[in-house]
Amino acid sequence: MNVWFTEYQNNDLIIGCRMSQVLHHEKTPFQDVMVVDTFLLGKMLLLDDVIQTSVGDEFVYHEMITHVGLNTLPNPRRVLVVGGGDGGAVREVLRNKSVEKVTHCEIDRGVIEAAQKFLPEITYDINDPRVELIIGDGIKHVMENKNTYDMIIIDSTDPIGPAVGLFSAEFYQSVHDALTEDGLFVAQTESPFFDRDFIKRIYKDVDSIFPMARIYLGNVPTYPGGLWTFTMGTKKHDPIKVDASKITALDTKFYSPEVHGAAFVLPPFVKALMK
Amino acid sequence: MNVWFTEYQNNDLIIGCRMSQVLHHEKTPFQDVMVVDTFLLGKMLLLDDVIQTSVGDEFVYHEMITHVGLNTLPNPRRVLVVGGGDGGAVREVLRNKSVEKVTHCEIDRGVIEAAQKFLPEITYDINDPRVELIIGDGIKHVMENKNTYDMIIIDSTDPIGPAVGLFSAEFYQSVHDALTEDGLFVAQTESPFFDRDFIKRIYKDVDSIFPMARIYLGNVPTYPGGLWTFTMGTKKHDPIKVDASKITALDTKFYSPEVHGAAFVLPPFVKALMK
Repeated sequence: MNVWFTEYQNNDLIIGCRMSQVLHHEKTPFQDVMVVDTFLLGKMLLLDDVIQTSVGDEFVYHEMITHVGLNTLPNPRRVLVVGGGDGGAVREVLRNKSVEKVTHCEIDRGVIEAAQKFLPEITYDINDPRVELIIGDGIKHVMENKNTYDMIIIDSTDPIGPAVGLFSAEFYQSVHDALTEDGLFVAQTESPFFDRDFIKRIYKDVDSIFPMARIYLGNVPTYPGGLWTFTMGTKKHDPIKVDASKITALDTKFYSPEVHGAAFVLPPFVKALMK
Repeated sequence: MNVWFTEYQNNDLIIGCRMSQVLHHEKTPFQDVMVVDTFLLGKMLLLDDVIQTSVGDEFVYHEMITHVGLNTLPNPRRVLVVGGGDGGAVREVLRNKSVEKVTHCEIDRGVIEAAQKFLPEITYDINDPRVELIIGDGIKHVMENKNTYDMIIIDSTDPIGPAVGLFSAEFYQSVHDALTEDGLFVAQTESPFFDRDFIKRIYKDVDSIFPMARIYLGNVPTYPGGLWTFTMGTKKHDPIKVDASKITALDTKFYSPEVHGAAFVLPPFVKALMK
């Protein structure tokens, strides 16, 4: 069959995936939520017609937005995930044996429900006693919980529409204050090929608020250009100084103790964004 | 304007680039050659409607297919580039101060001419006395020149149509024999997300013919999935054991002495292709 989902990744770039069916489509108060089945990568979650994740490639994004930070901390006990309604980030956090509690704050109940029903391969067990699910505004939650979390993961959509506030300097200050004294946060921060000014601004903001700011890379094949940045703000522990031999290896497909270090080795054109 | 070039990257994946004009279009005896001007990445070379390179992202591919191998050898004097009619690989090889002569063997004169005329930002100075340009069959050239080259770069199109022979075990044996006693070769070998069986086969062939086979990664935003493999067969020098502090740093945008090592740190799902 010759049915295609098309995403305008930016003004000048399209990605298209051949698909067999629309499994779910709902307009929530926040966004357009769709799950389609693709030939290339299996079931895929689309928010406002933008690819968020798929069964076939979700391991890259979800392993990289969680384990790099988790393994930078000696004992991450309390973790907050803001956004990430597909549940993949929470699922990966739960694999870390130090973690006692994951608070998952997602604004759109529709995404949670779609993932629970259509993407069981990606999402977490909603009955896991370590998970606290809050349907609500992540910005508000972060502002109201000072000195609470060892790690905060900002698993947002692109910086347009509802997610804009999750990329503001004010929000990063709130995140700083919501972290414990040696805590850190990680956010997905777009493409080093196509969003350079954006990444520069984020890095500068985080670097001005946190003792240390770091950028690392992953490769998400369905995101524009594939190569993707994650930005970390950390109060005490430097992710680059983690001893790979002390990381507990999990059965991961993209992340590994060796990949942890290599992800921070930035090509010069990416390093230039940190100046 | 709303004019788009569309590439079917495989049966199930499309990439589209918004463009302003077709600068050149020619059917040569070998393929369809086109140069278009895109909004995202500037001028772009298409062969049989497949994106080969663009002014905006060519640095990744051309730096990674050349400098990793060049800097693995203590003194690479003679280099052969098979294919790579756009000239970007030859241009990068010429930046290495050890290199005395680059033989460029490209089967399609039309690609050379299109690059010289429309892609001066990418191609090399055709009057450089260190370059020997041969319009001819790379397979034949490699078979006829034993024990000649310190490094051979196989800068081919995808393994369909005219390039199929450049991915055969027989050809890799010829490449082995065309190399000097401590030589190495590098080939572009497709996507670890979408061409896993292909990469496994290539790795196995190279590993059976050469004392050492290695896979390393780069990120080409216009190739399917972005993440891209390069496979190296080497007779003596191990690219992983190169001392980064001894690499002469050039003004490169993707490659660097640190990226050299990090490129060989493979995510587990890529490492699995080497078993």
